Amino acid sequence: MITNTNVMRALVYQGPRKKSLVDRPKPEIKEPTDAIVKITKTTICGTDLHILKGDVASCQPGRILGHEGVGIVEQVGIAVTAFKPGDHILISCVTACGKCDYCRRQMYSHCTTGGWILGNTIDGTQAEFVRIPYADTSLYPIPDGTDEEAVVMLSDILPTGFECGVLNGKVAPGNTVAIIGAGPVGLAALLTAQFYSPAEIIMIDLDENRLEAAKRFGAASTINSADGRAVETIRKMTCDRGVDTAIEAVGIPATFELCEQIVAPGGVIANIGVHGNKVDLHLEKLWDRNISITTRLVDTSTIPTLFKTVASHKIDAKRLITHHFRLDNILEAYATFDNASKSKALKVIIEP
Amino acid sequence: MITNTNVMRALVYQGPRKKSLVDRPKPEIKEPTDAIVKITKTTICGTDLHILKGDVASCQPGRILGHEGVGIVEQVGIAVTAFKPGDHILISCVTACGKCDYCRRQMYSHCTTGGWILGNTIDGTQAEFVRIPYADTSLYPIPDGTDEEAVVMLSDILPTGFECGVLNGKVAPGNTVAIIGAGPVGLAALLTAQFYSPAEIIMIDLDENRLEAAKRFGAASTINSADGRAVETIRKMTCDRGVDTAIEAVGIPATFELCEQIVAPGGVIANIGVHGNKVDLHLEKLWDRNISITTRLVDTSTIPTLFKTVASHKIDAKRLITHHFRLDNILEAYATFDNASKSKALKVIIEP
Amino acid sequence: MITNTNVMRALVYQGPRKKSLVDRPKPEIKEPTDAIVKITKTTICGTDLHILKGDVASCQPGRILGHEGVGIVEQVGIAVTAFKPGDHILISCVTACGKCDYCRRQMYSHCTTGGWILGNTIDGTQAEFVRIPYADTSLYPIPDGTDEEAVVMLSDILPTGFECGVLNGKVAPGNTVAIIGAGPVGLAALLTAQFYSPAEIIMIDLDENRLEAAKRFGAASTINSADGRAVETIRKMTCDRGVDTAIEAVGIPATFELCEQIVAPGGVIANIGVHGNKVDLHLEKLWDRNISITTRLVDTSTIPTLFKTVASHKIDAKRLITHHFRLDNILEAYATFDNASKSKALKVIIEP
Amino acid sequence: MITNTNVMRALVYQGPRKKSLVDRPKPEIKEPTDAIVKITKTTICGTDLHILKGDVASCQPGRILGHEGVGIVEQVGIAVTAFKPGDHILISCVTACGKCDYCRRQMYSHCTTGGWILGNTIDGTQAEFVRIPYADTSLYPIPDGTDEEAVVMLSDILPTGFECGVLNGKVAPGNTVAIIGAGPVGLAALLTAQFYSPAEIIMIDLDENRLEAAKRFGAASTINSADGRAVETIRKMTCDRGVDTAIEAVGIPATFELCEQIVAPGGVIANIGVHGNKVDLHLEKLWDRNISITTRLVDTSTIPTLFKTVASHKIDAKRLITHHFRLDNILEAYATFDNASKSKALKVIIEP
Repeated sequence: MITNTNVMRALVYQGPRKKSLVDRPKPEIKEPTDAIVKITKTTICGTDLHILKGDVASCQPGRILGHEGVGIVEQVGIAVTAFKPGDHILISCVTACGKCDYCRRQMYSHCTTGGWILGNTIDGTQAEFVRIPYADTSLYPIPDGTDEEAVVMLSDILPTGFECGVLNGKVAPGNTVAIIGAGPVGLAALLTAQFYSPAEIIMIDLDENRLEAAKRFGAASTINSADGRAVETIRKMTCDRGVDTAIEAVGIPATFELCEQIVAPGGVIANIGVHGNKVDLHLEKLWDRNISITTRLVDTSTIPTLFKTVASHKIDAKRLITHHFRLDNILEAYATFDNASKSKALKVIIEP
Repeated sequence: MITNTNVMRALVYQGPRKKSLVDRPKPEIKEPTDAIVKITKTTICGTDLHILKGDVASCQPGRILGHEGVGIVEQVGIAVTAFKPGDHILISCVTACGKCDYCRRQMYSHCTTGGWILGNTIDGTQAEFVRIPYADTSLYPIPDGTDEEAVVMLSDILPTGFECGVLNGKVAPGNTVAIIGAGPVGLAALLTAQFYSPAEIIMIDLDENRLEAAKRFGAASTINSADGRAVETIRKMTCDRGVDTAIEAVGIPATFELCEQIVAPGGVIANIGVHGNKVDLHLEKLWDRNISITTRLVDTSTIPTLFKTVASHKIDAKRLITHHFRLDNILEAYATFDNASKSKALKVIIEP
Repeated sequence: MITNTNVMRALVYQGPRKKSLVDRPKPEIKEPTDAIVKITKTTICGTDLHILKGDVASCQPGRILGHEGVGIVEQVGIAVTAFKPGDHILISCVTACGKCDYCRRQMYSHCTTGGWILGNTIDGTQAEFVRIPYADTSLYPIPDGTDEEAVVMLSDILPTGFECGVLNGKVAPGNTVAIIGAGPVGLAALLTAQFYSPAEIIMIDLDENRLEAAKRFGAASTINSADGRAVETIRKMTCDRGVDTAIEAVGIPATFELCEQIVAPGGVIANIGVHGNKVDLHLEKLWDRNISITTRLVDTSTIPTLFKTVASHKIDAKRLITHHFRLDNILEAYATFDNASKSKALKVIIEP
Repeated sequence: MITNTNVMRALVYQGPRKKSLVDRPKPEIKEPTDAIVKITKTTICGTDLHILKGDVASCQPGRILGHEGVGIVEQVGIAVTAFKPGDHILISCVTACGKCDYCRRQMYSHCTTGGWILGNTIDGTQAEFVRIPYADTSLYPIPDGTDEEAVVMLSDILPTGFECGVLNGKVAPGNTVAIIGAGPVGLAALLTAQFYSPAEIIMIDLDENRLEAAKRFGAASTINSADGRAVETIRKMTCDRGVDTAIEAVGIPATFELCEQIVAPGGVIANIGVHGNKVDLHLEKLWDRNISITTRLVDTSTIPTLFKTVASHKIDAKRLITHHFRLDNILEAYATFDNASKSKALKVIIEP
């Protein structure tokens, strides 16, 4: 890795279905609240694949992708007080000014000048260096002795499963939880749901490999919904009552509507999935069922909590990591991650 | 009124579009937890009109309608301890056993042997007498000196507006609230929303009369949505942010979808409307907006609270009452209530 | 055991420091909501020892002691609908009418005609049979296949630790919790606190045996406070911040005041201990610390939740049970339980 | 007022019982996050009187007093983005970095580098100019058209009554609230408690003038506790049940212990008072009463909410203002404020 020149390697979005690993100028401090971070580990998110399909209009060709990672602070702007060069830090996928109404309420996802901008409207983390705006409120110190590879999971995927799925879903001791979708984010919900000791977590997917992973990760039971009888099966398992929490972690109408059919009176449907289309909401059946439906873009407000759970071994975040690559081989990393059904990839670690 | 014979007058559902005022046997205690109540005041609900359209399959011809009212306890079963003959009481529209899992959580609407059964699956209150199962947990004592006419509004309409709209909608000091639908239940939400001092309540309807009523009842502003520009207007009023709480009090797809368009990030859509059809949920726009959608059949768990607010003049429940009839003229009362656009009827009081 | 006569064996409080196992008439149904339960397993509570010291004025000589246990329904009153003879049930230590304002809010401990009356103002469970008032809302069905011995812990001790300590104390993922007192109720708090995956539970006591038990039960660390340096030690362990939750499970001024010294800004002191004296509340130090202090008599409102956690193996309630006795030897059971420092007794099971 | 020199007038604490109005250098930007504010209106707080008694060790002689006020931004540091010269702003009495763990949780009072420092450990607002650290998160924009005099009440006293008393006290529709102490902060609690429509607010004090003010401000009833029968009176008024919320707004043992005696089972004692001594907490009576006791230094996290309630006329903050002075006469203002029993002063406005 070359750190004493002004050039660095970076994975750049070149328009729908096109990406390349190229040389780019090393980023520089622009605002007094910026930090420059030397990336030590980054990863790929399902959202990066969405961008590459051309589904994310805000992300224009020429953008360095990536919104997750850990690294070492290289340089800080004059107004940065919480970090100094040499600090080992986690990058939040969401940039927070810490000042606006939304940030005050810990709704960092809706920060009026931040939110999800990394690897979207500004250059991201799949590079040797990245510029982080509002560093004081967008970076998190990594406590000494923490496994930094595990910490990469705290940039996005674990807070996403935890905040959008588990907290919004009000998972509680003794409750019955169904998680629809056993991909990385569904598994992140599965791992963090166990913080609250629900009586039973039922995992639903079409892929037997993923359902097996779910079993290993703590699911009490799994349902392959390929036969179209998932609703019936869950009704039977819950004595016709339904589940207290249904977590949608896929993002298509069929899976959301499955949640509508299995949620118990008084229950919650917590949506995590990124939806591209409207869904049918059967209010003619649900208007009198005392249910809640929640949506959320991850705020990463739980990163400090998650750090403590990792440090105290309440969760083994590394279980989500299946593959490792050098930045030079990031195209191969993308291929592996994109072909998860074959590669069984969950999260891949990429190191410059 | 004849109380020393075994015959009484009652309004009976005779199948779609048919009802008649007939003689029926006076009800008798069937279970040790029953009470017989002599009705002194009852009223008509929008749901009674739904039944008469044939829309409520659970309600069969021959049923005495009505699920609201106040009266005097006539007789109690051997296990009733909270009431005795002569007590002035309010009848909850929801019957609660007080024992099942749902009742323990104050979700009386889903009581496994109760819920909304009065004037639905058992005979109701539009009669001289009614049998109330689980009297101890389904009746409420009327404190001395309380205006009993106002109290009729506590059987259903005020708790409905309060629980399904205001509490589910998390109305709070300083917030902006939109209520879609200025009919009786929307106005009940408007009255009870003011318990929490929101900065602004915007009322939306197609009927100018109702919007004028809304202004008198405390709406800060009103929007006639006939011109199809309600969304635009609200966006302008809220500096493009949207409302913290959108309360749906109509029950059709168009009004629910209006709520989807005006809710602010972090806001709540609280559904009160009785829906007969599915609606389009635009998750492709809402998945990342951190919103909640709630549904609820009224539990009437707030009746004790509402009694206190009425007694302390925090709410003037009588403002919802526009007409008075004798039970003998109940068919005329129905005609008046059903033709609200002309009669300007909100709630009508019917007295045997 | 003799069930076809009208005489039974029972442990009777005979005034301060006096108790005896005697013959008493078998109880009979008095109210339509009563049940008669044949006790199969009961236990002794610290409160029983308080009564025997003469500290509980409401409990008069002649009273059959005991407020915990499981059994089989023998007979039910005419208004009991949730249970029938032959049902295996758990007895709540708190009797709930299910009707009064407090019961409606699940504050069964303050039921206006119930609350803690068993083995206090009415005859209790340390006998072959017991009469349970308000059976429908004071008994809980034991699901088939559940270990009934473990279930005895759900009558009082587990809900006490869970409700008064863990729920009131807002134990949460990643938090730091201190529990003062490693007796049975402190250990019950320790077991149930783990439902919420706190980062660290610190157990404090003077007895090394109990602290060793705490380690086995899941405490991350233990402090023997005999050296008077517990505050200093906790300050060091928490980088001078203090603990998020301090649970008081002893009931004397010194331990409560220890909690005052170790609670972090924004934290909670959750009192479980039964106090006989006032304590010093150092508001001159705490007025600006944003803390909460809570007290609570167990409501047993979490029994249904605890049943689910036991059934799904989220907690091993049997770990609290150290000794077994026949009812005929209950005096020996008392001696063992009362001399815990020597016998290492936690909870003892007594079977007729 | 002279703004083009480097000298300004300021009220300086000169040690116990000594203060003087003197010339001091105009403050300058020290950190990139600072702002210099030209004070247009300030006021005096009870805490300023405490300092003058020598009770606040952190405040050393030479300090410019004052932590409340409105003004116009004169100059901003390079990292300030939310404000620019000419902006009309409110100064929070609490300085918040917006970055530390406490600030993230909106516990600005415990900001690790801020909190209550103005007029305490750094120079305050009773001057022509003041330097405000962390301006972006410690100042609030005043919406156009807002009465700026009313807004001065949002620096400290209204958030204090609202956060420490009303929110911590869980004031709710239909509840019964007692406020002990009808001084300015008690009256601020009284005004903001009405946001939640409690059934009844009972105000308790020894001063008839203040009790009369309380009546005008919305108290349902008042009790002069001089006769030592306040507990008895409240017991009678609440049918022996006690109050749902008892707000302590005095700060001495007698008033706190009064709260202990009048709080209902399930209720809250919300402490606002600044206490100099420990109090007796009667846990021997309260351990089983299911109560909460809360303490809090105001966080001013509700300033945005309070702005909206002022703008929408849900509260008339100006009612707290009784006197006006020029900065030149601030010693007279202090005399008036300090002698409230005679002057009937609540809050005084001071304008340079």
